[in-house]
Amino acid sequence: MAVSIRQLEKRLRPFTIADGKSFRLRHIDPAGTSGIKSKEQAKELLEHGVARLAELQERLYADDKWGVLLIFQAMDAAGKDGAIEHVMSGVNPQGCQVFSFKAPSNEELDHDFLWRTTKSLPERGRIGIFNRSYYEETLIVRVHPEFLQRQRLPDTVVSKHIWQERFESINAFERHLTRSGYIVRKFFLHISKEEQRQRFLSRLDEPEKNWKFSLADAKERGYWDQYMAAYEDMIRNTATPWAPWTVVPADHKWFTRLVVAATIVAALERAGLRFPNIDASQKKDLDAARVALEAEAGGRR
Amino acid sequence: MAVSIRQLEKRLRPFTIADGKSFRLRHIDPAGTSGIKSKEQAKELLEHGVARLAELQERLYADDKWGVLLIFQAMDAAGKDGAIEHVMSGVNPQGCQVFSFKAPSNEELDHDFLWRTTKSLPERGRIGIFNRSYYEETLIVRVHPEFLQRQRLPDTVVSKHIWQERFESINAFERHLTRSGYIVRKFFLHISKEEQRQRFLSRLDEPEKNWKFSLADAKERGYWDQYMAAYEDMIRNTATPWAPWTVVPADHKWFTRLVVAATIVAALERAGLRFPNIDASQKKDLDAARVALEAEAGGRR
Repeated sequence: MAVSIRQLEKRLRPFTIADGKSFRLRHIDPAGTSGIKSKEQAKELLEHGVARLAELQERLYADDKWGVLLIFQAMDAAGKDGAIEHVMSGVNPQGCQVFSFKAPSNEELDHDFLWRTTKSLPERGRIGIFNRSYYEETLIVRVHPEFLQRQRLPDTVVSKHIWQERFESINAFERHLTRSGYIVRKFFLHISKEEQRQRFLSRLDEPEKNWKFSLADAKERGYWDQYMAAYEDMIRNTATPWAPWTVVPADHKWFTRLVVAATIVAALERAGLRFPNIDASQKKDLDAARVALEAEAGGRR
Repeated sequence: MAVSIRQLEKRLRPFTIADGKSFRLRHIDPAGTSGIKSKEQAKELLEHGVARLAELQERLYADDKWGVLLIFQAMDAAGKDGAIEHVMSGVNPQGCQVFSFKAPSNEELDHDFLWRTTKSLPERGRIGIFNRSYYEETLIVRVHPEFLQRQRLPDTVVSKHIWQERFESINAFERHLTRSGYIVRKFFLHISKEEQRQRFLSRLDEPEKNWKFSLADAKERGYWDQYMAAYEDMIRNTATPWAPWTVVPADHKWFTRLVVAATIVAALERAGLRFPNIDASQKKDLDAARVALEAEAGGRR
């Protein structure tokens, strides 16, 4: 029997962490699919989610009060790009901006670590997607201390509390965003080390996927355990009621996309978006406009 | 007898508020001069301060680790522009950027209230001056609720706690900046209502000052008490050890400038700025460069 949307939402709820205190990465199985058996079974649900998202985005744009910030973090080959592409496929591109953050420029390094992403925040009424984000400041920068060195921070501000302080800065920033009318949702695509190996191999085997393979990515694989520890600590410290993390099982791409779509839809449904009301005086203006337009057509006849 | 720099610093200390809890605006006399009798007596002290500031700025630039953010807020005609001009007169313009924030653009209104100023933050090694700032969001926007309306915030985020929440957002933001290597100092130029009246009159009386007079400014004068209440509440809630407010008596321009210069100098002295050390290997490179340069001159002879 098919799974209903309502059942699905209930099944996916455990993946969203709004309080990180007791979170452990090992509680979430990268190969899990919440009882959904196959890609085929998921297909209809995903299509429904994508269509619903397109509707909600139209209302978001018309209402023009809320902004939406979606953050994606993951190890390489976990499927970030594919998830963004598939889930947002129905959305009007005018109301949706995707930004990818790679190695920071010199100008960016000359500012605080929240500066470069802040410049790219979505405007009211729009969905902004960060493919990687300021969270890299607690991930790659933490795993590779030489990147912290490169930030040229004064010695006195680099203490052993620096990661805790960065979490605090991030929490306060996201709190500020939600107070300013942003809906913030964060996704960690949780892939297993073995599945990453398989995907790297297929990038090497299939010529049309070769361009996706990078030696640097393969090298980062050597720091797997340090990355997993950094991700876990990040989620434990920055999963908040106002900006929860969704930890998405990522060994099955079709399931990843379903979880991402359903989570965004649920967040937007909650905001109670509606098309703007037309009041009596505006209605009068519209009626007058109609009369004028109709008269014009009459004049031409 | 002349006042020494050290004595001066001690006398000016009460104007800097690092904990706002017990602050009251009426405790500070806009006409106060801390026992300094005249412009002439202040002149030498100011010159010394301006020269010292230029030295410190050079070190800040060479050291290239700290950034400095100076915020100026005041009622009209309190002397912000003149204070910035005089105090920064000796500083290399390459290491100093001044931004004035007037009415926000539509693009700016479509973001959170910290967005537009964040874009203009100084780079590491530089002094950034905000002539007005995000604090206007708790001043003019508070005194004129129609400006808040114009921000198109969702109804659910506009509660009676909004000003308290804005103070919290600002405190967290400034905390983040100091953790990122910024020195943050904030100045409220505290002018009396009568002195503002006199300065407005002289703008009307002297033709070459006419351009400075604006009817809109004069109109804001009608909200004097509401502004004073908003300034007091702002300082009570955002004067912090990491980003203190200096409440500068502003009825005497020469005293205003002296307080501003001395406060900035004291903040920079505290940071222990130094020219970068050259280590043994760099020294060797420099020696090699000298040899090469000298040989080149010899070759041409």
